[in-house]
Amino acid sequence: MTIDELNFDEKGLIPAIVQDVQSKEILMLAYMNQESLNRSLKTGETWFYSRSRQELWNKGATSGNKQQIADICFDCDKDALIVKVIPEGPACHNGSYSCFSQSLIKDSGKPEASPSRFQIINELEETI
Amino acid sequence: MTIDELNFDEKGLIPAIVQDVQSKEILMLAYMNQESLNRSLKTGETWFYSRSRQELWNKGATSGNKQQIADICFDCDKDALIVKVIPEGPACHNGSYSCFSQSLIKDSGKPEASPSRFQIINELEETI
Repeated sequence: MTIDELNFDEKGLIPAIVQDVQSKEILMLAYMNQESLNRSLKTGETWFYSRSRQELWNKGATSGNKQQIADICFDCDKDALIVKVIPEGPACHNGSYSCFSQSLIKDSGKPEASPSRFQIINELEETI
Repeated sequence: MTIDELNFDEKGLIPAIVQDVQSKEILMLAYMNQESLNRSLKTGETWFYSRSRQELWNKGATSGNKQQIADICFDCDKDALIVKVIPEGPACHNGSYSCFSQSLIKDSGKPEASPSRFQIINELEETI
């Protein structure tokens, strides 16, 4: 299997679901083009294509919250990826562990408390 | 939060990551339009929009492998969903538990053995 065999869409993009390889929580959904996927495979860090800024971005380059790649899986249609990562910090720009912290069903407008995995680790570190 | 506040793309679609609420494994990535999301919320079963057939589809209507919805979450950009489900059978049309059964890194062309959760349950059923 090579990257050429993947089905990138008409804009040259493929959706990449970023999942914490340990907790299995879904952290974010981003998009890759062929070059960002190549850079991800080469460097072992996540590289995406920003549709709004129309440029490549290395997750965590400015925030420090990089994601180390453990595996990349593709689906039966070869048009979607799961990028399994070890996150070095929150995935979300608002500081949450995951970008998916709100429910359409369980809340009515009120943001759900996001899983505070890193907070717990910080507290554990202070204790020991 | 209402459905109207979600950011559907220029085709009126939003990507929906389907995740097993118990195992946390990602089963598939599909797309919803406003109507399929409404039907999903109303029926508690997954409804998607097929981009190839250009029609709504109720997952499992023909195969029997329906997905009962436990929760639906949206991300910080409101342009992606996680649909947390209890699957009643394999998610993939090829009979696999998940559509994501192959690795871009760990295999070289050879399909990875897909997690055989349902096979294990069948064997357990026969034993007891």
